[in-house]
Amino acid sequence: MSTVTKTENPETDPRVKAVFDDIRATRKSDFINNMWLYLAFDADLLEKTWGEVKAVMATPSALDPVVKEMLYIAVSVTNGCSYCAHSHTAAAKAKGMTTEQHADLLRVIALAAKTNQLAVALQVPVDAAFDADRQT
Amino acid sequence: MSTVTKTENPETDPRVKAVFDDIRATRKSDFINNMWLYLAFDADLLEKTWGEVKAVMATPSALDPVVKEMLYIAVSVTNGCSYCAHSHTAAAKAKGMTTEQHADLLRVIALAAKTNQLAVALQVPVDAAFDADRQT
Amino acid sequence: MSTVTKTENPETDPRVKAVFDDIRATRKSDFINNMWLYLAFDADLLEKTWGEVKAVMATPSALDPVVKEMLYIAVSVTNGCSYCAHSHTAAAKAKGMTTEQHADLLRVIALAAKTNQLAVALQVPVDAAFDADRQT
Amino acid sequence: MSTVTKTENPETDPRVKAVFDDIRATRKSDFINNMWLYLAFDADLLEKTWGEVKAVMATPSALDPVVKEMLYIAVSVTNGCSYCAHSHTAAAKAKGMTTEQHADLLRVIALAAKTNQLAVALQVPVDAAFDADRQT
Amino acid sequence: MSTVTKTENPETDPRVKAVFDDIRATRKSDFINNMWLYLAFDADLLEKTWGEVKAVMATPSALDPVVKEMLYIAVSVTNGCSYCAHSHTAAAKAKGMTTEQHADLLRVIALAAKTNQLAVALQVPVDAAFDADRQT
Amino acid sequence: MSTVTKTENPETDPRVKAVFDDIRATRKSDFINNMWLYLAFDADLLEKTWGEVKAVMATPSALDPVVKEMLYIAVSVTNGCSYCAHSHTAAAKAKGMTTEQHADLLRVIALAAKTNQLAVALQVPVDAAFDADRQT
Repeated sequence: MSTVTKTENPETDPRVKAVFDDIRATRKSDFINNMWLYLAFDADLLEKTWGEVKAVMATPSALDPVVKEMLYIAVSVTNGCSYCAHSHTAAAKAKGMTTEQHADLLRVIALAAKTNQLAVALQVPVDAAFDADRQT
Repeated sequence: MSTVTKTENPETDPRVKAVFDDIRATRKSDFINNMWLYLAFDADLLEKTWGEVKAVMATPSALDPVVKEMLYIAVSVTNGCSYCAHSHTAAAKAKGMTTEQHADLLRVIALAAKTNQLAVALQVPVDAAFDADRQT
Repeated sequence: MSTVTKTENPETDPRVKAVFDDIRATRKSDFINNMWLYLAFDADLLEKTWGEVKAVMATPSALDPVVKEMLYIAVSVTNGCSYCAHSHTAAAKAKGMTTEQHADLLRVIALAAKTNQLAVALQVPVDAAFDADRQT
Repeated sequence: MSTVTKTENPETDPRVKAVFDDIRATRKSDFINNMWLYLAFDADLLEKTWGEVKAVMATPSALDPVVKEMLYIAVSVTNGCSYCAHSHTAAAKAKGMTTEQHADLLRVIALAAKTNQLAVALQVPVDAAFDADRQT
Repeated sequence: MSTVTKTENPETDPRVKAVFDDIRATRKSDFINNMWLYLAFDADLLEKTWGEVKAVMATPSALDPVVKEMLYIAVSVTNGCSYCAHSHTAAAKAKGMTTEQHADLLRVIALAAKTNQLAVALQVPVDAAFDADRQT
Repeated sequence: MSTVTKTENPETDPRVKAVFDDIRATRKSDFINNMWLYLAFDADLLEKTWGEVKAVMATPSALDPVVKEMLYIAVSVTNGCSYCAHSHTAAAKAKGMTTEQHADLLRVIALAAKTNQLAVALQVPVDAAFDADRQT
């Protein structure tokens, strides 16, 4: 059940096929998950979204791929995105997140949510020491 | 400006003093940031909150201390907690987060927020392949 | 599965019947969706909620009905409300939202979520030029 | 006060200068607001973010520019982003949003937040009639 | 600094004056806080918002006035609304919330945010026993 | 469907068994809900989470147990946590929340979400009168 109709035979559109081919090549897998199948209702949205996901998540950068997946989980959980919690937890495990790291991740995101509430509830003033301009 | 009155001379309460002493010893610094100064209005809340922060963030675990600070930032930013964004970005830098890692962190949390919106807007059904019970 | 029991034969309560009659007349349809069937557990809550929805969404105003539905979707998606994303996307389509407009809506709400994260993560200070009092 | 240090003389970096020049040309104004000044700490992030904002917000599309700004406000307010609420309300006014439309916008986003809470609190099951696949 | 211009002499509008008079009479105080001063830019929005706040918060109902203020704080903090955290904490204190109750409130909302994260991160399936229809 | 595999025979781990025994004793019921069954994948996380829930929710304190459950609902609904909305509404009813109180709770959390949006959209400046330090 979704808010857009899943396109039948989406790869008859060459722009969609090109993206799906790139997803398969990048991931070395034939599996295309629902996110992309549903985004295919608009080729431009599909192309740009995959382009950005590939550039940020599938390209070597200053952060380790597993760390990036864990950050993705942290945001997705805080936003309450069920699909994203599922897909990125699966991705993090596929990239090597251990059960111990998973539990540790949960500890940090649960604690952060808790102290976020306390800081907002108390309306704690920001310390001058945290000002990046002052730290220079 | 805060929702509780900042306690004057909080360390006259021995429970508060013990927590502040432990903060200083753990961080090897005399600086006590406002979060703890304001939480001191209730010694129990102060003790338990610091106890959990110390256990999760200042104790060796499956995740690197810098990674844990970056996860903390990801949650805090998603929750819109200004104080927490400031304090944990400062902490991440103090623990070694480079400018390149900071930019990479921003790329991931911005992208995650974006695809979270798309997945929720489309109400993408969760793929059976993401079921942890099936993965066993 | 819900947190309140769905009332059987809710229209035996004349206040509920009056609201349901008004929903049918306003929408020129016999269909009463679950939101109202479940809210019927408390006649006052049902009456006041429908009254406000009718006044804001079904009464001519400064904004076009389709625009109002798209704004409703933007808020509902950002709040992660699955029911609301479904019901208001269906409503927007019924009121004339095209597939191109739908894709454009998704582009804007995804981009907004992304730059919201960046602005909060950076804690960008508000420019004086944005002060409404200064703009007078 | 921010989490990154504002770059002094950012336009000595040609990539930053190119983006700032494009912002000025696109907006026909010399004013560069803080969002871009702070993002300039990382030229790649600045380029890509501006590129996307320009493509979505400053390029003719299926939705009216004022409507897109109002959708941006709806998301930003729901996410609690102070900077974004300020900058996009100013932008919407600059693009022609009237006071009556502004009040109407507030009515819709306030009502949406309210009924979102009710739908989530009641855990209202999604009606089969809202399934996009069924609507085909 | 706000997104609308604060109306000068708002009580020259008889609809605004009537609302302000009712606020003063209901609260037995001459103080009109900024929320109402800024909402006065649109008399309809002011009237309807105050009408609902008065009906829900200043009218005897099934819940105690202090409890209602604490619930208001819980929502406001979770939504990250700084103004609302301030105004409703002040209101709760004015209506009798003790320091012990305040600390207890913080404990509950911090714990709830924490376990919310865990439940979402784990995507815990809802137990059939929680179904209200089954509980009848 | 979950992001961790539900442990089979979790009580073969003595730490898990001890927590489950304490849950059963505290609640005077044999029913262990899914939250704890899934958290059992990490004994430390299970122990600490239950310990905190028990200390805050099942120990006499300045707030009434039903009030604490209603606050929990308010946070959970605002965070969009489906599991938590279900479990804590069931808990509140079990502890005596009446239908009238439930409807009143919904009225307050819906109104709070609405005025939160208005305050953020208007960026209402906090009144000096709300400063706790000034109130002393």
